[in-house]
Amino acid sequence: MPNKELSGAGLRGQSAGSTALCTVGKSGTGLTYRGYDITDLANNAQFEEVAHLLLRGHLPNQKELDDYKTRLVSLRGLPTELKQALELIPASAHPMDVMRTGCSVLGNLEQEQDFSEQLNATERMLALFPAIICYWYRFSHDGVRIDTEGTSEDCTGGYFLKMLTGKAPSNLHKQVMHCSLILYAEHEFNASTFAARVCASTLSDLHSCITAAIGTLRGPLHGGANEAAMEMIENWQTPDEAEQNILRMLENKDKIMGFGHAIYRESDPRNALIKRWSEELSEAVGDTHLYAVSERVEAVMKREKGLFCNADFFHATAYHFMDIPTKLFTPIFVMSRLTGWAAHVFEQRENNRIIRPSADYTGPESRDWLPIEQR
Amino acid sequence: MPNKELSGAGLRGQSAGSTALCTVGKSGTGLTYRGYDITDLANNAQFEEVAHLLLRGHLPNQKELDDYKTRLVSLRGLPTELKQALELIPASAHPMDVMRTGCSVLGNLEQEQDFSEQLNATERMLALFPAIICYWYRFSHDGVRIDTEGTSEDCTGGYFLKMLTGKAPSNLHKQVMHCSLILYAEHEFNASTFAARVCASTLSDLHSCITAAIGTLRGPLHGGANEAAMEMIENWQTPDEAEQNILRMLENKDKIMGFGHAIYRESDPRNALIKRWSEELSEAVGDTHLYAVSERVEAVMKREKGLFCNADFFHATAYHFMDIPTKLFTPIFVMSRLTGWAAHVFEQRENNRIIRPSADYTGPESRDWLPIEQR
Repeated sequence: MPNKELSGAGLRGQSAGSTALCTVGKSGTGLTYRGYDITDLANNAQFEEVAHLLLRGHLPNQKELDDYKTRLVSLRGLPTELKQALELIPASAHPMDVMRTGCSVLGNLEQEQDFSEQLNATERMLALFPAIICYWYRFSHDGVRIDTEGTSEDCTGGYFLKMLTGKAPSNLHKQVMHCSLILYAEHEFNASTFAARVCASTLSDLHSCITAAIGTLRGPLHGGANEAAMEMIENWQTPDEAEQNILRMLENKDKIMGFGHAIYRESDPRNALIKRWSEELSEAVGDTHLYAVSERVEAVMKREKGLFCNADFFHATAYHFMDIPTKLFTPIFVMSRLTGWAAHVFEQRENNRIIRPSADYTGPESRDWLPIEQR
Repeated sequence: MPNKELSGAGLRGQSAGSTALCTVGKSGTGLTYRGYDITDLANNAQFEEVAHLLLRGHLPNQKELDDYKTRLVSLRGLPTELKQALELIPASAHPMDVMRTGCSVLGNLEQEQDFSEQLNATERMLALFPAIICYWYRFSHDGVRIDTEGTSEDCTGGYFLKMLTGKAPSNLHKQVMHCSLILYAEHEFNASTFAARVCASTLSDLHSCITAAIGTLRGPLHGGANEAAMEMIENWQTPDEAEQNILRMLENKDKIMGFGHAIYRESDPRNALIKRWSEELSEAVGDTHLYAVSERVEAVMKREKGLFCNADFFHATAYHFMDIPTKLFTPIFVMSRLTGWAAHVFEQRENNRIIRPSADYTGPESRDWLPIEQR
């Protein structure tokens, strides 16, 4: 009989290894990457500085950052076979399945032959992931084959917006994308990162680890909360309508996405950072109600349940105000979290033991074999 | 600083959940699937009976088994886009990357829309995995587009051999494949199964879970030991030559693949079962030395190190005697273990909590932000 008892399940609170990359929910600072507070990073850094910090171990100086961005720009050419593979995937596919498949195909074409190639392989993915999702999206939805090398946008977020819309992004949009990608870059032993480490612990290749992580992030309990939040918010025209509906949903015990967190207890330090940008974008686009609706939902959830917004809630409107289709929200998470996943794979490889836990057996006792004619 | 201490690492001996599917290393019986001893299953059952046991919960009666095999045969048609995707992958690719990609592409074309489809989606993969690897292998190596529905072989192992070689397999070969696929079908919370469960715990789709598992099995510490054993054994022409080389390798502290196990302490119950078939195949093909070399390696490892053969060691020669290319050994493991992986995903979904452990932080203390011009 399956054991229906869940306390202590999911390895909650159990250490599954060590990391020098990140703290989550330590007192004083809510979230740090290699010791730097997320607020400092999100308010001051470009995403490529944070990628450099996570993957190469330190914040770059100006020359290092310039070189790094130049290098990433040089890696944006999609292999022909990868383009052909993306063209085979229908518009109805789940965009996370496209990301997972794009990464997996790349591993066939540009196999990581040994671990000395891990940084190069990661930076190739960092350059290509926006190209992969936009190439598929534009081809399957608009019949357009985009030139993934045809832009001088030298930041990951700006590059994504340019590939997606064909228009040069504004400075405001580029700033928001830096903040967003920084907030999503790393979060300790979350489920997708842990899946990457389990995969890495068999000494498998990097593309397998990242493919596993993408598939894990795809689940609605992990990535996808910002998409779910958007789908909810856009139903409501006024804050009062939102409040009535939230109250009814709470009464029905419906799950409301974008609130609470497995680790944080009082607040998610990422919320205030993206909320500020959502508000600024709301003003810039002349939004009449979505930001106000979001603020009301936040207030009602706090008042009624004591629950706080996590990183995902105000990401919904922030992305929406930049005209990003809702179903591409989680692939943006992938472009960013790739840096954390890969840094964890490097770390696992440095000090590896295969991750192989035990299980409590709840099945039948020993049973005698019964020949088929006696069944 | 990374912590170099490994004791207790890898969650060894820690329970990460419960399962009714399998026991490994319990006293009395070395390995059971839903309470049935592996020896009874491997000596008496067809692989499809064991697949039915793992996926549908009980050993089938004759009608159920016949219907099950008929159903699997009916599911062997590769979607056109999947064939086209496989044709894009070069002969130089790693066959496990091909399996991972084939599964991932399938998830785009035949998405599991909700969990009520999990059994159908699994059985489709069970029917298609031999077709995926053989279609790619024959196209990339021989330029041949095989007809994956053009055979009446109604067992998974026989079907694989027929697709691979174009020849009808002998009864002996079909029997060996049943035994082999049964031995590899399930093994509790091994790393690839655990990766599948971590992925499932976010409520992601089945193809993501299986893709993650394939990528994890790819690592040389997990799948691939039978390939490594084969590459070692085929270097030696006589048992004496093998013994000299093993002794030198032990002196050099080289890793010798196919021996010992993370859980079993005294023996691997699967070894005797596949070893018997390796011996019979050796006689059938007129092998002059490979089986004898293998037996000598087994004896030397026991005498010198007290180490026993695991499931992989005699699989190497068994597969080799059936003319299976060494690089396709681990994809056979995938065709079989798919049943265990999927059964674990079903179980995880039944009683889910997201798998999100904690980590010990070993990184730098809080650091102040430093503007880029001051770095």
